[in-house]
Amino acid sequence: MIIVNYNATFKYMTVTTLRKIDLFKNCSEAFFQKTEEQASVQKQSKGKMLFLHEDEAQNFYVIRSGWVKLFRETLDGTQAVVDILTQDHIFGETAIFQNNLYPYSAEVVEPSEIINLPLSILKTEIKDNSKFAYDMLGSMARYRRQQDREIEHRDIQNAPQRIGCFLLRLTTQQEEGSIVIHLPYDKMLLASRLGMQPETFSRALKKLQNETGIEVKGATVKMDTLDQLVRYSCAACSSEFPCKDLGNAAE
Amino acid sequence: MIIVNYNATFKYMTVTTLRKIDLFKNCSEAFFQKTEEQASVQKQSKGKMLFLHEDEAQNFYVIRSGWVKLFRETLDGTQAVVDILTQDHIFGETAIFQNNLYPYSAEVVEPSEIINLPLSILKTEIKDNSKFAYDMLGSMARYRRQQDREIEHRDIQNAPQRIGCFLLRLTTQQEEGSIVIHLPYDKMLLASRLGMQPETFSRALKKLQNETGIEVKGATVKMDTLDQLVRYSCAACSSEFPCKDLGNAAE
Repeated sequence: MIIVNYNATFKYMTVTTLRKIDLFKNCSEAFFQKTEEQASVQKQSKGKMLFLHEDEAQNFYVIRSGWVKLFRETLDGTQAVVDILTQDHIFGETAIFQNNLYPYSAEVVEPSEIINLPLSILKTEIKDNSKFAYDMLGSMARYRRQQDREIEHRDIQNAPQRIGCFLLRLTTQQEEGSIVIHLPYDKMLLASRLGMQPETFSRALKKLQNETGIEVKGATVKMDTLDQLVRYSCAACSSEFPCKDLGNAAE
Repeated sequence: MIIVNYNATFKYMTVTTLRKIDLFKNCSEAFFQKTEEQASVQKQSKGKMLFLHEDEAQNFYVIRSGWVKLFRETLDGTQAVVDILTQDHIFGETAIFQNNLYPYSAEVVEPSEIINLPLSILKTEIKDNSKFAYDMLGSMARYRRQQDREIEHRDIQNAPQRIGCFLLRLTTQQEEGSIVIHLPYDKMLLASRLGMQPETFSRALKKLQNETGIEVKGATVKMDTLDQLVRYSCAACSSEFPCKDLGNAAE
């Protein structure tokens, strides 16, 4: 772990990152000033545990680059992946509504730069700035809707359709012509994010290729247009494409 | 549909119902006064559609008695049950964060008394009362955690364990000695709430009885203690019993 010292460049970087996150668009200047003063950024390697489920929460986190896995474990050691997040996503923030205990564990799954911020700053901003409180409610409502969709898909989509939906989430949905998607993490992790056994995932990915003509080589997916994927996956979904619920979770 | 006329008894009933809901504990007197003035209560029969997914939202709802199903439909007509709610639960409120469109359809599934309130009252209270905004964030964080758990269970619990977890949710978790649970709605609905085919549900319920010794007769479930159910279902879960995530959703 390398803690980058607090300096002008870093200050600038942190505030720049936060300002481009939609959730913070109505935050006060006092908020940004406090984040400048109190943030630290850490370069973390793969495998680093940031916190454990039910740990007392002091901080929330923003990903500047890389990938972080949120998960929980059952008494018998089975792991359930809650989410996998990347650049500009926030995590750990809901602990303030849950007795200051983290509702999941967080592990770095690719080399990452993580901004670390005291929860107290967020708490104060919610209390003092009703616009931000409102934006935060909006963000949680979107997440709720996305989770509803996730539960729905586990009931009514088959495994290849669910992989298709996941791939669509990694596009801007507006793309025309041929498309290349870089899978963000190893396939085992992808399988567990989608709640599939690795063998199920491999078979389903093969079937998805046969059904839609997409090409998968290693971590790269290529397709001529999004159309076939949309026809294949979105038929078994209560949303229409372009999909308001796509995009990664905790934004 | 019978609209009960606005009168002193009804006023009293509405405010009494709202005051006992935890979410409203920090609401202003202005809020309660407006709800008195603007609420209407409706007796609805089974099958009544209260609103459709993506309808423009004017109101939110509180259940005084009965059961309401929230659901969405895919393009090919498959129904996904988002939730089934009962007394003192709120629904439709998150539309204010989603362009004033309802994120699901709502259907009455048992004769119910529903309080109907303008969303504008809620909107004003969020803006003017930071304590309430905070409570609302807390309520959404709990819901989020519960949905995470639901997704987790679909991955790592088997069907009988999931029915067991659902039954535990209908208890106070504190009960000692023998316990009787009245299943709130027909078993088909219960199956779809749990994302199971009716045949899977029947087989799983039978297996749950064999494994834990609970007795199921019609809509009544009896057991000597909660212990066996807890041992059976909570072993495959990342929460411990008593469970902070149990209890019905949108409270």
